[in-house]
Amino acid sequence: MLIKRLSIIGVGLIGGSLARALRRAGQCTEVVGCGRNVENLETAIELGVIDRYSTSTAEAVEGADMVVVAVPLGSIAGSFAAMREALGETAIVTDVGSAKGSVVADARANLGSHMPYFVPGHPIAGAEKSGVTASFADLFEKRKVILTPTEETVPEALETVRKMWDYTGACVVDMGVAHHDDVLAATSHLPHMLAYALVDMLAHMDSHTEIFRYAAGGFRDFTRIASSDPRMWHDICIANREPLLKMLKEFDAYLQHLAESIEQQDSKAIESMFIRAKEARDAFAG
Amino acid sequence: MLIKRLSIIGVGLIGGSLARALRRAGQCTEVVGCGRNVENLETAIELGVIDRYSTSTAEAVEGADMVVVAVPLGSIAGSFAAMREALGETAIVTDVGSAKGSVVADARANLGSHMPYFVPGHPIAGAEKSGVTASFADLFEKRKVILTPTEETVPEALETVRKMWDYTGACVVDMGVAHHDDVLAATSHLPHMLAYALVDMLAHMDSHTEIFRYAAGGFRDFTRIASSDPRMWHDICIANREPLLKMLKEFDAYLQHLAESIEQQDSKAIESMFIRAKEARDAFAG
Repeated sequence: MLIKRLSIIGVGLIGGSLARALRRAGQCTEVVGCGRNVENLETAIELGVIDRYSTSTAEAVEGADMVVVAVPLGSIAGSFAAMREALGETAIVTDVGSAKGSVVADARANLGSHMPYFVPGHPIAGAEKSGVTASFADLFEKRKVILTPTEETVPEALETVRKMWDYTGACVVDMGVAHHDDVLAATSHLPHMLAYALVDMLAHMDSHTEIFRYAAGGFRDFTRIASSDPRMWHDICIANREPLLKMLKEFDAYLQHLAESIEQQDSKAIESMFIRAKEARDAFAG
Repeated sequence: MLIKRLSIIGVGLIGGSLARALRRAGQCTEVVGCGRNVENLETAIELGVIDRYSTSTAEAVEGADMVVVAVPLGSIAGSFAAMREALGETAIVTDVGSAKGSVVADARANLGSHMPYFVPGHPIAGAEKSGVTASFADLFEKRKVILTPTEETVPEALETVRKMWDYTGACVVDMGVAHHDDVLAATSHLPHMLAYALVDMLAHMDSHTEIFRYAAGGFRDFTRIASSDPRMWHDICIANREPLLKMLKEFDAYLQHLAESIEQQDSKAIESMFIRAKEARDAFAG
């Protein structure tokens, strides 16, 4: 049994699915939930995701050997501050945030001397639906989970968190904090910005109801991520703003180059960009 | 029987699927194919898509009452020029190009006095695979087909092309040439540019093999259109460059606005853009 008392701060899609997966694996004795929405927490009990709950973070982490913070990025600092005094001496704390530099800064500022037991984490998994009712034990199956231990992190804490994610069926990898944030800015945060900006632009066009009517399947796939939760993505933009701004600037240079090539009818430049991109996409998609 | 002799110039996914659909509907007696690749044309005969073929456009349109030009946009002017002298007096000519302004200009320059029988058309349908082996009779089922008649187009020609597409199961709509090109630049051509530029940018990053490894499902959907045929999309960029450049400029303004909002941590501006985009995307996706 890896975990005796697991505290899940934020019992939504990610927190709920993790609890379900660990229960199914028989790797935790008790799950304590925490959140602001009592109705959601009652549902979590009915669904068998958690055993009991508290709306107080300090109460919820009491006696826990593993605390998973699965709240939106903008609320993580507050969660750390609220649990600090109530954490057991060797209680391991981990999170699931999509940006790691900001979370590590939040931890340094709010977890203080507990930093050795903090393991920053990011499961690259999600679904279009959210909330505990959408959670399921298979969510992390074959998905990547990135852990970005800090210089303070003790090896035992890192190994326990790694084992926890192994039990969910995920592939766990370690990465530096800054590198994680660059990689995610490029492959996830930037594409979301492009999709949001495109759909917002089309929605502002006079003929937008008609415009969407003529959109084909490619457009539907391309804009799917613009249906993502606005508040969550606002938090990601703020938390990972430096790497994201760097990628936005870099992307703008590529787009300007393409626009100039089209303006000048530079067939070779246009086609060579498309060929390179197709090769890379086909190689990636296998 | 709507069509006696149907000439398909360019027997690929679109041309082949149209021939299959019209045969299945019992609406054409004979199908003559035309192309440069003899092997492909032989395959088309084996598959029962065409009855016979010629590699000469003039020969292929001889005696045809309906000529469908389904070659890449960059080759349409040449096809028109090659068929001009061989067209029967009332032979209807239509095309399937993704940009209509350039095709109408090509027709005016190369079809001359035959313009009244030219009906510009654009079936909004496609598939990831191409070529006659990928063609199938259901391709246009419930898809939109946009016809953009010119001021010269005679009503009988327009009505016959409309009926032809009706028999494939498509929903046929009429639109002005310039409006078509704006709508398609916004909903199809611009998204393709964004996907190509993004994947090209990532492929240039030092750690690109690793970067693609951490890309999640959203990235896969978002970049699917970057696998599209580079030559075809080169032709579309050139053919529809004015509307496309206008949309690229407009998009850049939206992206700059978003980048500034992130830089200034203007939460209200960021979140309101995401909320508008999500609402529009959800409404569009039903």
